[in-house]
Amino acid sequence: MLPQTPPDPPDLTRRLKKLTSILDVTKAMSAERDLDLLLPLILYEASKVVEADRCSLFVLDRERNELWSKVAQGSKNEIRLPVGSGIAGQVAQTGEIINLPDAYADERFNRTFDTLSGYRTQSVLCVPMRDANGEVTGVIQSLNKLSGRPFDSEDEELLLALGAQAAGAIENALLHEEINRLFEGFVSASVVAIESRDPTTAGHSGRVADLTVTMARALEHVHTGPYAHTRFTATELQEVRYASLLHDFGKVGVREPVLVKAEKLYPHEMEGLRSRFQLARKDLQLQSYRRRLAAVKLRGTHHLAEIDAEEDERLLKDLKHLDEVLEFVLTCNRPTVLAQGNFERLHELRHLRFEDSFGQERPLLLDREIHSLSIAKGTLSEEERREIESHVEHTYRFLSQIPWTRTLRRVPEIAYAHHEKLDGTGYPRAIPEPTIPVQSRMMSIADIYDALTASDRPYKKAVPHQLALDILKREVQSGQLDMELFRIFIEAEVPKRALKDFRG
Amino acid sequence: MLPQTPPDPPDLTRRLKKLTSILDVTKAMSAERDLDLLLPLILYEASKVVEADRCSLFVLDRERNELWSKVAQGSKNEIRLPVGSGIAGQVAQTGEIINLPDAYADERFNRTFDTLSGYRTQSVLCVPMRDANGEVTGVIQSLNKLSGRPFDSEDEELLLALGAQAAGAIENALLHEEINRLFEGFVSASVVAIESRDPTTAGHSGRVADLTVTMARALEHVHTGPYAHTRFTATELQEVRYASLLHDFGKVGVREPVLVKAEKLYPHEMEGLRSRFQLARKDLQLQSYRRRLAAVKLRGTHHLAEIDAEEDERLLKDLKHLDEVLEFVLTCNRPTVLAQGNFERLHELRHLRFEDSFGQERPLLLDREIHSLSIAKGTLSEEERREIESHVEHTYRFLSQIPWTRTLRRVPEIAYAHHEKLDGTGYPRAIPEPTIPVQSRMMSIADIYDALTASDRPYKKAVPHQLALDILKREVQSGQLDMELFRIFIEAEVPKRALKDFRG
Repeated sequence: MLPQTPPDPPDLTRRLKKLTSILDVTKAMSAERDLDLLLPLILYEASKVVEADRCSLFVLDRERNELWSKVAQGSKNEIRLPVGSGIAGQVAQTGEIINLPDAYADERFNRTFDTLSGYRTQSVLCVPMRDANGEVTGVIQSLNKLSGRPFDSEDEELLLALGAQAAGAIENALLHEEINRLFEGFVSASVVAIESRDPTTAGHSGRVADLTVTMARALEHVHTGPYAHTRFTATELQEVRYASLLHDFGKVGVREPVLVKAEKLYPHEMEGLRSRFQLARKDLQLQSYRRRLAAVKLRGTHHLAEIDAEEDERLLKDLKHLDEVLEFVLTCNRPTVLAQGNFERLHELRHLRFEDSFGQERPLLLDREIHSLSIAKGTLSEEERREIESHVEHTYRFLSQIPWTRTLRRVPEIAYAHHEKLDGTGYPRAIPEPTIPVQSRMMSIADIYDALTASDRPYKKAVPHQLALDILKREVQSGQLDMELFRIFIEAEVPKRALKDFRG
Repeated sequence: MLPQTPPDPPDLTRRLKKLTSILDVTKAMSAERDLDLLLPLILYEASKVVEADRCSLFVLDRERNELWSKVAQGSKNEIRLPVGSGIAGQVAQTGEIINLPDAYADERFNRTFDTLSGYRTQSVLCVPMRDANGEVTGVIQSLNKLSGRPFDSEDEELLLALGAQAAGAIENALLHEEINRLFEGFVSASVVAIESRDPTTAGHSGRVADLTVTMARALEHVHTGPYAHTRFTATELQEVRYASLLHDFGKVGVREPVLVKAEKLYPHEMEGLRSRFQLARKDLQLQSYRRRLAAVKLRGTHHLAEIDAEEDERLLKDLKHLDEVLEFVLTCNRPTVLAQGNFERLHELRHLRFEDSFGQERPLLLDREIHSLSIAKGTLSEEERREIESHVEHTYRFLSQIPWTRTLRRVPEIAYAHHEKLDGTGYPRAIPEPTIPVQSRMMSIADIYDALTASDRPYKKAVPHQLALDILKREVQSGQLDMELFRIFIEAEVPKRALKDFRG
């Protein structure tokens, strides 16, 4: 690409300097994986190296056979051009350099941009960017050589050289973006898939992520108190976002019936209990007829009407009592807070017996049923609550298996602590305040807020925004949640800013 | 970095040429994201640019404060050195160039490698590689200038320049590896998490992926038949691997009890049925006592013993019959293939009735129970089979949401067709042969083979290798599976090569 017969030393030296500066720029470009920062950097350096007033860069979209430009110096919108149209389109199509001393004298030049922007293009140098295989991947275009003269062959070489390096850097940045988008897309989709098992929590993880990240961002405006100097970088925000998005992933390890349990007894348990009451009714009837037969044997058939009347009355009373017991059991089954007396009455019922069809005496209510029906709050027994709570361990185990990149390495740890409480009463580890990461503290507030305000859960109705804040406040006052973070949560209006369907 | 007062033109020209070649190399380096290919490329170019006999490159591992080298020309193992030790370790520590005309004259030089390899190091030039922030990220070392003279200051500059570019390329390749590993790790871990819902299929997806990729690789050695020219690139292999790994992901959308159904009636259905039989027994007893009372009324108490005897006999007979019906139902409940007669007998049982505790007449067997018990094969009803089969739709919908990179864009499509059959009898779309991708055809064979040979499923025992091949062969002969791929599956001994716990 460089001339074989070199010109005079000053020229060589200048060219050497420029090549060296391209090498320096290349290094800076290869380190910049954010396309929004990389493209301006390339344009800035391109303008410098060919001493142009401004530059623009177009990336080739082969599938749509278009050129697109995310940034053109002096313009902010994305521009799309068909390949073949205008100077840039021509270069993309042919792969040949176009170097015009006077753009307006060339019919391929499209004056629309000048007309729209009021800019006056004089000289134009447009070169293809090629990847390592020599394929054109875009074009880079310089406008108006500062000296007022046309761009020369040295400019062509230098811009070509810079464009080649830029092509590699852009390809890397695009690939980086692609893989990041792939990872993020996969994480989100699998969270949605897992949440679909429990329709009452659909969208919960996404909302907790939005709330937590919004809160983390709000810390930037905090200049007093314990978090005056707590700031999150872009990668730290990404880390807390993944931790929030995945905090309930372990629920995949909790049995479905437990996840969606709406009453204290499972539907199949209730069915079994009802069958037993049917059997007990039948037993009362059978006992009654046995007694009638025995009475007739003793007192004779002439007393039959009398015996039947007595027994009918007794049977009716017994059946009514049994039906009342079932009624009471059905009341206990609902997820309300029981009055203390009910526990006692439930425990008295433990002694009720009936005879099964094999003449075996059996309890009317099983111990485990009485145990479940005695649940004082919600619908979950201690064991079931532990099973639900085990999702945090599952989440942690799941996340710990994943080879996080260095910048995301705290994801497991942050998610692990989202049910810990500052007073050491949380789960699963009941760790003390200083060991709970600030990210997890924020996530706790977001998690509880969303659990309260989101669409109905089996055991409680959705709570309005203000009431949710009151409930959170009580947890703050009892020393479980972080007071300062809760203050920021309210002051920065985190729910309003984070949630699409916020109703305050 | 370049001298301010340039030497004579020939020197300048040479330097210009070398800088240009560094730019070319940089472009090649930035396109190479596979570290195993990038490192040799760097070493080759470094040797060329400073005219050295060989070069080596060490990457700095800050966490362990060590240098590691994946490749050193002439050696294959990974080498690890503590920072500070030897020439390379010194350069990594100080960030200063070391240029030795005679390595053996310098006490920092470690002769071990020479002793081990029989190589004789004379001149050494070792320079730091720095990232865009100026941080040392490794060192690059050239041995034995070919001219026999020491390395000069121009070599220093050039190697430094090349090292700087190499640092960026290495950083990019490492990052690329990191994110790929993260994505892959996340995919594998979530597949394991979802498979854990159905313990009988644990590890299935991973094995199907191994089998399918092994088969795809085996195609390389096929030079005849329809797949003589079918070859898979590294990224295509990755694509088929992800499709296989995720082919059952949609099972997360299938209800757990259906997934693990072991008998024709669910446990809770069986419990309900047993309760009903208990109630029916009790009913027989009650009816018997009612009849006794009625008979006594009619025939008088003096016939009581006689009546009791008659009724006891009848009751015993009736109860025995009922118990036999239950016994028969239990037999039907097992996942065996029913003899045709049993269906008829089951349908006759439809007419059996009993009286519940409210005097209501009820069927002993519910229609849906008879329906389930009549399942001719396995344990799943038509609706349940459809629900299980719907996992393919769920998988496809899930995979289609994910923003796959260009090289992985066919993952959804490949997974979608894994239950299609060549004769158009597959599901969910029953598409014809030409529209089923070869990747899906391979996956079908792998999927069926593993389903047959892996640890017991609820409805059938694990099948030995040879029998599995016989079953597959039948499906090939009936035109469902691809004959040529099945031939390759056997000839290339795919299971033996792909599966860790293969037992043939």
